[in-house]
Amino acid sequence: MKALVFDKELKAVDDFPKPQAPLGEALIEVHMAGICNTDIEITKGYMGFTGIPGHEFTGTVKEVNSSEKSWIGRRVVGDINCACNKADCHYCRNNLGRHCPGRTTLGIYGRNGSLAEYITLPVENLLEVPDSVPDEIAVLTEPLAAGFEILEQINIYPHDEVLIVGDGKLGLLINHAVSTTGASITQVGKHPEKLGLVAGSRCTTILLDEMPDNQYDVVIEATGSADGFNFSVAHTRPRGRLVLKSTIASGQNTDMNPVVVNEITIIGSRCGLLDPALDYLASGVDFSALISGIFPFEKTLEAFQAARQKGALKILIRF
Amino acid sequence: MKALVFDKELKAVDDFPKPQAPLGEALIEVHMAGICNTDIEITKGYMGFTGIPGHEFTGTVKEVNSSEKSWIGRRVVGDINCACNKADCHYCRNNLGRHCPGRTTLGIYGRNGSLAEYITLPVENLLEVPDSVPDEIAVLTEPLAAGFEILEQINIYPHDEVLIVGDGKLGLLINHAVSTTGASITQVGKHPEKLGLVAGSRCTTILLDEMPDNQYDVVIEATGSADGFNFSVAHTRPRGRLVLKSTIASGQNTDMNPVVVNEITIIGSRCGLLDPALDYLASGVDFSALISGIFPFEKTLEAFQAARQKGALKILIRF
Repeated sequence: MKALVFDKELKAVDDFPKPQAPLGEALIEVHMAGICNTDIEITKGYMGFTGIPGHEFTGTVKEVNSSEKSWIGRRVVGDINCACNKADCHYCRNNLGRHCPGRTTLGIYGRNGSLAEYITLPVENLLEVPDSVPDEIAVLTEPLAAGFEILEQINIYPHDEVLIVGDGKLGLLINHAVSTTGASITQVGKHPEKLGLVAGSRCTTILLDEMPDNQYDVVIEATGSADGFNFSVAHTRPRGRLVLKSTIASGQNTDMNPVVVNEITIIGSRCGLLDPALDYLASGVDFSALISGIFPFEKTLEAFQAARQKGALKILIRF
Repeated sequence: MKALVFDKELKAVDDFPKPQAPLGEALIEVHMAGICNTDIEITKGYMGFTGIPGHEFTGTVKEVNSSEKSWIGRRVVGDINCACNKADCHYCRNNLGRHCPGRTTLGIYGRNGSLAEYITLPVENLLEVPDSVPDEIAVLTEPLAAGFEILEQINIYPHDEVLIVGDGKLGLLINHAVSTTGASITQVGKHPEKLGLVAGSRCTTILLDEMPDNQYDVVIEATGSADGFNFSVAHTRPRGRLVLKSTIASGQNTDMNPVVVNEITIIGSRCGLLDPALDYLASGVDFSALISGIFPFEKTLEAFQAARQKGALKILIRF
C-alpha cells in the first residue's frame, strides 16, 4: 500500500505491507489524513517514533476481526489511544484509557499511523461520521477534540473572561470549543488574517504587540513556546487557571515564580474524547477557512513542506 | 528600637525609629520572630526589599489606633498581607486580600517586618494566641499556615496517596497539615535525621537515593529547586495534582512536557489563613524538634548564619 514512512527521514513508498486487523480491531481504508504539528515534531525525533506517522484521519471500515461486522462499510473517525483494557489497569478501569501506561497511540507510539492507505484500530475506538460531514471536515475531529478536552477537565462559566494565546490551528480550534461555554473570549496572536477567522461578536482579537496589561480568569496557552508560557502566566489572574495545551521544549526558560506567588492553577491538557467534537462539526459550523491545502498522497512530501511554513493552517492528504 | 535592617547588607541597629500605628492598625511589641528562607532570599535581592525583614512573629498589642481597644494587652500572631480593602477591589471583595494588588506584606513588600522590637499591623489581621501555646510554638503559625493553604485550595481525600518532596522545615510543616486529611503520606528527602521527625504509622519516609518508580495522586513540591520540580512531575500520576509550594529561580530547566502529556494539574500555593494553623498548634502537637536554635536579638546576624547552614530547621530570635 501507499504510505509515508519515517525512519531518520521521511519517505513516500507504495509497497508498504497492508496491515491485518488483530483480534478486536478493524481494518480501515483511509480517505483523508491531516498533518499535525506533532507529525512535524516526529520528523525531528519526538517520541523516538519510527514507522508511519499521522493520527488525524477519516476512512471506511473494510474488515473487522471480531463479531461486530456491522461496522463494515461505515465511514469513521477514531480515538488514537489504544488502551490495554486489562481488568487491573487503574486507568482503563476508570475510563481513562488515554492515560493507560500500556497504550499505543496511532502514528505516535507503538502503532503505525494514518498517512497510509490502510490503518487498523480497535473497534471500540471508532465513531461513525454523519453523512452531512464531508471528509475534509470530519478529519478535524481529532484536533478539535483536543480543544473540547479543556471542557472535560475544567468548568468554564459564562461569566469567565478567557484568553486564548496563539492563533495557529490549535488556538483557532480551541476558540470554537470554548465558544460553546458562553464565556467572553479574547484571542491574542501575531497574524491579523488568522485572528480574523474567529473575530466577531463573541470574540475580541488582539495583536500580540498591542496586548494591554489585562489579566483573565482562564488563559489557554496554544503556542508551545516558552515565551507563550511566560506571557500566559503574566496574563492569568491571581487564583486563575492556565490551560497548557501544547508541549514546550525542555531546556527553555519558563518562569514558575508567578505561578506560586499568584497561586495559579496550571492544567496540562492533551487529547480529548471525539464525541463532542464530532457533534460540533455536525452542527454545520464552517471550518473551510482553517484548511490551507489538500494534497494528493503523491505530493505528501510537498504537503509536509507546506505544513512547516509559518502561517500554514491545516494541510490535508487525500488518498 | 532594636531592629535588623537590610539595605544592600544586613545590619543590627538599636536606634531605629519606633513605628506609630496608622489608623486601623495596632502597635505590637514583638516577643519572638522566626527566620524564613524568604528572609534569606531578601538578603540576595528578592522583591527588591529594603528595610526590616521578617514576617513570622508573636507579640503583645501595646496600642490600637481605632476603637478596638480591647486588643491591647493580648498576645497575638498576625496575617502578613495587608489588603487595600477598597470596595471596588475584586480580591478584597472576594475575601482574597492575600492577592490584593494594592497589598503590602510584612517584611517582604512595602512594610517593615518583625525582626524588630515593634511592628504595626491592621487590627483585622490579628489572631489571639491561646495561653497554652508558648511563643516559640506560636511563631510557627505563619509557616504552618502555608502548609494548611494546600487544604484550602484542593481536596485531599483519605484514599489519596500523597508524596511530599523535601524534608526542610516547609516540607515537615506541610506533613503536619496534610496529616489532618487521613491520606497516606510518603515523604522523600536527603536527610535521615529530618525524615525521622515525621516517620511513623501515618507517614512512610524514603531517602531520595532509594526512591522507587512510584507515582502518586497528589505530590507536594517543597524544595524550591528545578530538580525538585522535575522529580515531582515524574512522580505525579497521569491526571494527578502537583502542589508547588515554593518558588523556583527562573532560568532553570523545568520540563513542562510531561505536565501536558500526563495532564497533570499544578497548583501554585503561597500564604495561608492563620486560623487552622493556630488551632493545630493549640492541639498540643510537639514541634520542639523543628526548632534548631533560639538566639537573642543581639546575635541576630549569627542567627542568620545558622539559618543559612545546610540542614538548619527553624531559627528563632527572642527580643
